[in-house]
Amino acid sequence: MNDTGNGPARPRMRLGTFLEVPQATHAKAGQIAVMGMPFDCGTHPTRIGSRQGPAAFRAASSEVRPFYPPLADVDPRANDGVVDLGDVDVTASDIEPSLAAMEAAVHDVVAADAVPLCVGGDGTVTLPVLRALARRYPELALIHIDAHTDAYPGEDVNTGTTFTRAAREGLIDTARSFHIGARGTMPVAGAYDHTRSLGFRLITGEDVRRRGAAAIAAEVRETIGNRPVHLSFDMDYFDPSAAPGVATPTWGGPPVAEAFDLLHGLVGLDFVGVDINTLSPPHDVAGMAAMLAGHVAVIALHLVQLGRAEHRLNGGQQP
Amino acid sequence: MNDTGNGPARPRMRLGTFLEVPQATHAKAGQIAVMGMPFDCGTHPTRIGSRQGPAAFRAASSEVRPFYPPLADVDPRANDGVVDLGDVDVTASDIEPSLAAMEAAVHDVVAADAVPLCVGGDGTVTLPVLRALARRYPELALIHIDAHTDAYPGEDVNTGTTFTRAAREGLIDTARSFHIGARGTMPVAGAYDHTRSLGFRLITGEDVRRRGAAAIAAEVRETIGNRPVHLSFDMDYFDPSAAPGVATPTWGGPPVAEAFDLLHGLVGLDFVGVDINTLSPPHDVAGMAAMLAGHVAVIALHLVQLGRAEHRLNGGQQP
Amino acid sequence: MNDTGNGPARPRMRLGTFLEVPQATHAKAGQIAVMGMPFDCGTHPTRIGSRQGPAAFRAASSEVRPFYPPLADVDPRANDGVVDLGDVDVTASDIEPSLAAMEAAVHDVVAADAVPLCVGGDGTVTLPVLRALARRYPELALIHIDAHTDAYPGEDVNTGTTFTRAAREGLIDTARSFHIGARGTMPVAGAYDHTRSLGFRLITGEDVRRRGAAAIAAEVRETIGNRPVHLSFDMDYFDPSAAPGVATPTWGGPPVAEAFDLLHGLVGLDFVGVDINTLSPPHDVAGMAAMLAGHVAVIALHLVQLGRAEHRLNGGQQP
Amino acid sequence: MNDTGNGPARPRMRLGTFLEVPQATHAKAGQIAVMGMPFDCGTHPTRIGSRQGPAAFRAASSEVRPFYPPLADVDPRANDGVVDLGDVDVTASDIEPSLAAMEAAVHDVVAADAVPLCVGGDGTVTLPVLRALARRYPELALIHIDAHTDAYPGEDVNTGTTFTRAAREGLIDTARSFHIGARGTMPVAGAYDHTRSLGFRLITGEDVRRRGAAAIAAEVRETIGNRPVHLSFDMDYFDPSAAPGVATPTWGGPPVAEAFDLLHGLVGLDFVGVDINTLSPPHDVAGMAAMLAGHVAVIALHLVQLGRAEHRLNGGQQP
Amino acid sequence: MNDTGNGPARPRMRLGTFLEVPQATHAKAGQIAVMGMPFDCGTHPTRIGSRQGPAAFRAASSEVRPFYPPLADVDPRANDGVVDLGDVDVTASDIEPSLAAMEAAVHDVVAADAVPLCVGGDGTVTLPVLRALARRYPELALIHIDAHTDAYPGEDVNTGTTFTRAAREGLIDTARSFHIGARGTMPVAGAYDHTRSLGFRLITGEDVRRRGAAAIAAEVRETIGNRPVHLSFDMDYFDPSAAPGVATPTWGGPPVAEAFDLLHGLVGLDFVGVDINTLSPPHDVAGMAAMLAGHVAVIALHLVQLGRAEHRLNGGQQP
Amino acid sequence: MNDTGNGPARPRMRLGTFLEVPQATHAKAGQIAVMGMPFDCGTHPTRIGSRQGPAAFRAASSEVRPFYPPLADVDPRANDGVVDLGDVDVTASDIEPSLAAMEAAVHDVVAADAVPLCVGGDGTVTLPVLRALARRYPELALIHIDAHTDAYPGEDVNTGTTFTRAAREGLIDTARSFHIGARGTMPVAGAYDHTRSLGFRLITGEDVRRRGAAAIAAEVRETIGNRPVHLSFDMDYFDPSAAPGVATPTWGGPPVAEAFDLLHGLVGLDFVGVDINTLSPPHDVAGMAAMLAGHVAVIALHLVQLGRAEHRLNGGQQP
Ligand SMILES: [Mn+2]
Ligand SMILES: [Mn+2]
Ligand SMILES: [Mn+2]
Ligand SMILES: [Mn+2]
Ligand SMILES: [Mn+2]
Ligand SMILES: [Mn+2]
Ligand SMILES: [Mn+2]
Ligand SMILES: [Mn+2]
Ligand SMILES: [Mn+2]
Ligand SMILES: [Mn+2]
Ligand SMILES: [Mn+2]
Ligand SMILES: [Mn+2]
Repeated sequence: MNDTGNGPARPRMRLGTFLEVPQATHAKAGQIAVMGMPFDCGTHPTRIGSRQGPAAFRAASSEVRPFYPPLADVDPRANDGVVDLGDVDVTASDIEPSLAAMEAAVHDVVAADAVPLCVGGDGTVTLPVLRALARRYPELALIHIDAHTDAYPGEDVNTGTTFTRAAREGLIDTARSFHIGARGTMPVAGAYDHTRSLGFRLITGEDVRRRGAAAIAAEVRETIGNRPVHLSFDMDYFDPSAAPGVATPTWGGPPVAEAFDLLHGLVGLDFVGVDINTLSPPHDVAGMAAMLAGHVAVIALHLVQLGRAEHRLNGGQQP
Repeated sequence: MNDTGNGPARPRMRLGTFLEVPQATHAKAGQIAVMGMPFDCGTHPTRIGSRQGPAAFRAASSEVRPFYPPLADVDPRANDGVVDLGDVDVTASDIEPSLAAMEAAVHDVVAADAVPLCVGGDGTVTLPVLRALARRYPELALIHIDAHTDAYPGEDVNTGTTFTRAAREGLIDTARSFHIGARGTMPVAGAYDHTRSLGFRLITGEDVRRRGAAAIAAEVRETIGNRPVHLSFDMDYFDPSAAPGVATPTWGGPPVAEAFDLLHGLVGLDFVGVDINTLSPPHDVAGMAAMLAGHVAVIALHLVQLGRAEHRLNGGQQP
Repeated sequence: MNDTGNGPARPRMRLGTFLEVPQATHAKAGQIAVMGMPFDCGTHPTRIGSRQGPAAFRAASSEVRPFYPPLADVDPRANDGVVDLGDVDVTASDIEPSLAAMEAAVHDVVAADAVPLCVGGDGTVTLPVLRALARRYPELALIHIDAHTDAYPGEDVNTGTTFTRAAREGLIDTARSFHIGARGTMPVAGAYDHTRSLGFRLITGEDVRRRGAAAIAAEVRETIGNRPVHLSFDMDYFDPSAAPGVATPTWGGPPVAEAFDLLHGLVGLDFVGVDINTLSPPHDVAGMAAMLAGHVAVIALHLVQLGRAEHRLNGGQQP
Repeated sequence: MNDTGNGPARPRMRLGTFLEVPQATHAKAGQIAVMGMPFDCGTHPTRIGSRQGPAAFRAASSEVRPFYPPLADVDPRANDGVVDLGDVDVTASDIEPSLAAMEAAVHDVVAADAVPLCVGGDGTVTLPVLRALARRYPELALIHIDAHTDAYPGEDVNTGTTFTRAAREGLIDTARSFHIGARGTMPVAGAYDHTRSLGFRLITGEDVRRRGAAAIAAEVRETIGNRPVHLSFDMDYFDPSAAPGVATPTWGGPPVAEAFDLLHGLVGLDFVGVDINTLSPPHDVAGMAAMLAGHVAVIALHLVQLGRAEHRLNGGQQP
Repeated sequence: MNDTGNGPARPRMRLGTFLEVPQATHAKAGQIAVMGMPFDCGTHPTRIGSRQGPAAFRAASSEVRPFYPPLADVDPRANDGVVDLGDVDVTASDIEPSLAAMEAAVHDVVAADAVPLCVGGDGTVTLPVLRALARRYPELALIHIDAHTDAYPGEDVNTGTTFTRAAREGLIDTARSFHIGARGTMPVAGAYDHTRSLGFRLITGEDVRRRGAAAIAAEVRETIGNRPVHLSFDMDYFDPSAAPGVATPTWGGPPVAEAFDLLHGLVGLDFVGVDINTLSPPHDVAGMAAMLAGHVAVIALHLVQLGRAEHRLNGGQQP
Repeated sequence: MNDTGNGPARPRMRLGTFLEVPQATHAKAGQIAVMGMPFDCGTHPTRIGSRQGPAAFRAASSEVRPFYPPLADVDPRANDGVVDLGDVDVTASDIEPSLAAMEAAVHDVVAADAVPLCVGGDGTVTLPVLRALARRYPELALIHIDAHTDAYPGEDVNTGTTFTRAAREGLIDTARSFHIGARGTMPVAGAYDHTRSLGFRLITGEDVRRRGAAAIAAEVRETIGNRPVHLSFDMDYFDPSAAPGVATPTWGGPPVAEAFDLLHGLVGLDFVGVDINTLSPPHDVAGMAAMLAGHVAVIALHLVQLGRAEHRLNGGQQP
């Protein structure tokens, strides 16, 4: 298939952006702002590398395209709908200053009434994103799609406590927030119970398989309704056969097409933020996880634009 | 599992052929002739390498076996049923002369009342194959299984316009020809509509998932009936988790077993040609796509022989 | 996800064991004894390497965890439930002495009323395991999950005749023994018939897909009942997209989650032995098959302990 | 080794540039302008991929550092000495328009009295670079370091005729231009004679080994003197053991340290242009060739700055 | 080449040790004790993984053999000369407690008059090793072979300050301690001067190339004389073409044979400790760096035993 | 570099041969006959795969070219000088019948007064080659270039005893036969002495480094003189950094260019046979060892033709 699409007019020289969208220094209202998060905590027992996620993500976006029928046979880049702001200036392994920097960068985007699409980094990056979003969207809901709930007991900031802290900090409306896809072997007992004890709704991977992606998506849409929602997508939701390049590969994930079904089913929600995390290039194989993350990002672009069209332009409820 | 099958008697010395079938200089009536097409256009924006497909395909055939119950618990190589003619002498990137050479080579096989099984090369190779087949089979039907329709607008010869040209040149009966499996992100809007505008029947990957392989196969069989049919199988129909070594990896493909179901369901059709394209060895991982192409080829051998048995030997309609 | 589980107390220095269980020189009653089998026959036509399976298996176990809800949200390592005995001292390619050494080593474990969990090695290692088990469990049943039946005709000891010999030596109750998952291309005709002719029950991969893992598991449980049973799991049961690192990759395997379903469905049986074979590290990609074997082993630990709880502690029938 | 260097002040967000230099839209006088050339002809018989070189080159520059004692224990990025302009907007495989675009982009840089450092792309990209340089530097000398002379007979534009055309177009002073490093197997007879027949000085790889890098460098320096010179460095000058990711791997290259010696020996020359070509990421192994290209680029930065200091600031001859 | 050596008698079952030496819980006087250090700081900007070094090191030792003519055509494992204690129980990324654990474990070995051979881990592990050695050997000399001096300014414990701290803590006699092999690009200016300012002798990689390994070794032997000496070998001393699997690949290293020459030249010194660090398996290619580390370890075994024979048994000076 | 060489006229369709030479069923007088030996014993402790060498060797020959200045700037394929007979029909792991088959196949070639160029297979294949050659050339000399002498004690046929047996069977004139390049770690003591005890001349790798390739080659030429000689080249003579894909990687090999020097220095000898062994594709990296084997084969073609020109056509001594 030859690429003959006519995306954004390209400048004479440019650095590689996600899907060749224009590079920008600031986001404008209504835009989606791609933001790289080259950060991981450096503390995973064995597999560290999400800090290199953003570069791999952008490079692999040469293997995805913008139009996406039947969900949306349009180019999301039209009318400067998407810009790439580059990577936040963080120092991987140096947790607190990096979280502050990520929160500030996302806040700038949110304050401009743009939608951050944060890519790369480990699961910790969702915390500063939620902190920034919560300042503007007090009733923020969360959809967390992951093979793990990342709502384990503990006080440290790490990938396993992201949502424990988000709940304790009151960043999200846990009763309308979902963890979808938990499965597999666990390092502690009671991981699911602890997640529920924080008020979250837990839909395990087994639930998804039994009930089907469409039913799950319907429940999510109905529960969240018009509220602003953040989508946090951990690449390890996919089976390692599709996404080997992640930090904590967890077998038994859905076929890729069914994972897409779940995402497609979320159309209509009012997404005010997205992050796609845990892509770990040193553990990837032939760019598979990176390319797949690019596909998820294209879906996310359309979900955000379709949701925005419904909620913001056509009388949707403003924050 | 030890290989103890007794395939064709092996000469004292030999070059590696597909499945160790005899090498031949010409095909005879009733035979299936394996033909390598070491060609790609050299114009894919990022992933070029199908020109090296035939060698990888033959080498990987050491990992497939000939008997295939319950579809056919027989050795398709029996009675010299399959020969390997080697690779057509083409120059990759040099499009027009190479297309002519491929067409001539296939024509020789078709003229001998043998069935070409063309392997390797990008999706462009299907065009000369159809040109050669059309000279003998004026009512040729097509089954194109691919994540893309390759029936995009455009006048150039490239992998995206193969079937646009085939339709315009009148090589096939488009009303009885199918594109099965289109999915994923697209470089242009309206790709599906353009395909239909050429008269083709389009069954998307989503249609296959919803209706099931058996139903799709039944529709195809019923539509095509006794007509001679060419099977063009693009390896990117598989999900990249199974076939990473392709030019345009497209996520969301069927589980391999369901892709096989679709092929098995085509039994009984009168296949007069087969091509298996888009295997790109530089992008493959541990020979996965190459081995998988070998499995597809074994299915194809049986489909051709079973179809031939029904249509040619038992009173099937001659062209 | 941070690992915060509290498994067995760790000594100040240690060699890497499976899942960091204690290393031991002998197994005690009630324990599961991990045993490496660094052996393959050296006769596969093209892909040799299972001899290196045990080391890869142990190393990759850093990527699996012990708790496994909902099947068993407990740590199987508690109370010294699992020990690692290391690898049996065999010489790969030197078949007869190695089989004797493996049988002797397994016999020691079985004689101590412990359960051997044999890992690594090609499919031949199941034969000495069965020989050792049969000495203690005269009515032993077998569940063999594999893309091949390994019950081919022939007198040689190799991976293709393991169960032919097991049947002929009367090691197992073939009428209550299952081969589950056979599929794909075959080197000889009649492979399935020969398997059945030995008295085995054959459930093909196609049967599993049609009937579902739950139904298959129910039939197996009902047939075997209280009898002691050995589970032999060949990693090539998985599709090569998930487990590329095997000797005879066979396309069309189940989604990983469905393979797990089948194993989960066997809960309650009285497993007296387990082997996980055919992991071939030189052919693996990024440790995928090795990590997946680790997940299977965690399931097996729970199956054994749950079965033992039911059959041995709560009045189950002793041999 | 922890990186604690203080390179250029980093903006809050940024896209990955070579060595984290500032991104710029235009070069200023005295600067070195990194320019990506994502182009190859698409016609190599088997190994195509240099079109993806620039992105790999920038990403791998995380593994090189700026200070380089004893050649230059300074940061070449100081005082905005280096900027990254991004990639030229070309279409790989579409030769003529792409050459024009590259020439125009380089001309802009040269016209600003900046020095282009062109990276990525196959050996064809040197032709437009020379065309742009020749417009400003009529007595341009060339140092071409490559396992091949790329001065073969032929009229086509391809990687084998770059310097044939450069000579015929009168872009360089061939009598003061060097091809250094030719070695290995050749597709035609008389390759060396043809190179010399164009007026070039040919120093084979064998000459370098026999005479030593220092002697060769001295001869080059003496011959070229104060003239402006372009350095064209083909990554296949290295042995494939060090740089597997190239289009035409050619065994028998120098140890990496000796290749660096040769480059170090060129200090003092007045470099007005540099290109580092033929990095082919699909054929690279663990980023080896890409990292090595980054090291060559750091040397080149220092060579340019040291030469400029001598020739331009301290009374060197202006063009 | 068939392995027919008769090393130590092997127990019936065992875990994989380095070179199949006996596993032990404590070292005895005169033994060499292999000790794994599965630790890295987790703070390298991009390449983290030395924490997984010990397992890879042991596994790859299947590809080295014990006899080493002409240096020593004997088996160093004879008479229980070498034991493997396993890995120290550390938590990678958790620096201070891990350093304490490593120091304690090494101290146990040193206190038993055995020689620690520490493998795996990043360059930080040398610090606790020196701390433990210094408690027993007050006049300890150091030979540090590395592409970097790891004697950078700074107060933090990281791989770049190991020897800055060792000097400041007075662990070694810096005037008789060598840094050999520094080369390549640097993150800061003045790295070499700072190293010398701490009192160390610095022999750059360029010095080694110019003077030759034999001359360097002679200088080292003469300077150190009868003093006890620790050998710290960073795998990045090798060129990345030989050892890609390191944290900070640095081009321009010596041919492997010349690196061995340097080590061979140290024969006769009284080595009381050895560490081989920086092997990073996630960045390795086909186990190359791991196998090469095994070869270095075999050399080290012989150096220690030959030195011990000379210094301890034949009237060498006791500490 | 574009390939524009005009090698042998290519048929319309063909299977891939080495360097695209004509495929033939029998060799003619004066020809060089490429013969694949897809055999290894299956008994290496860890790395088995040379049985797949021939296919990889032929495929990788697309990356070498025929002309080779200054040794020979001619095409060795001219005048049908080289043909490819394909692979001998052997069964890997089945030693005795396979040796017989290889001997018979080589004998056919030798009997036709052609020169066998045997490729692929482990080091055992040299034994049947020598048996066949010895029948015709009673005073056969041997040049064995290898990191090992393969002249270990023992009665079994394996890669370690090839030349022990060759000596005992009287196949070669050991006093005029050389083992060149032995180095590294050894499984037994006295390996070198045993080699010498059989009458062989042993030149270690260290000898080559100290004396230089030219001096070694001169000694070899002088010793052998006009006698017919067989060249056995084990790919592990190269350092593993250049040739990772071998069975027994042995560090400390020569730079590739110096290994070529040694071969070039043998020009003028009367080569009546060549084998290039031990290429093990499953252990290779990006085809490096396979491509390098192709380069060695091109050198061998020229050595044979140059030697033949001198010895056979210009009055050389006939056997
Ligand atoms: Mn997560
Ligand atoms: Mn996760
Ligand atoms: Mn296609
Ligand atoms: Mn396609
Ligand atoms: Mn099996
Ligand atoms: Mn199997
Ligand atoms: Mn070039
Ligand atoms: Mn070149
Ligand atoms: Mn270091
Ligand atoms: Mn270092
Ligand atoms: Mn050998
Ligand atoms: Mn050897």
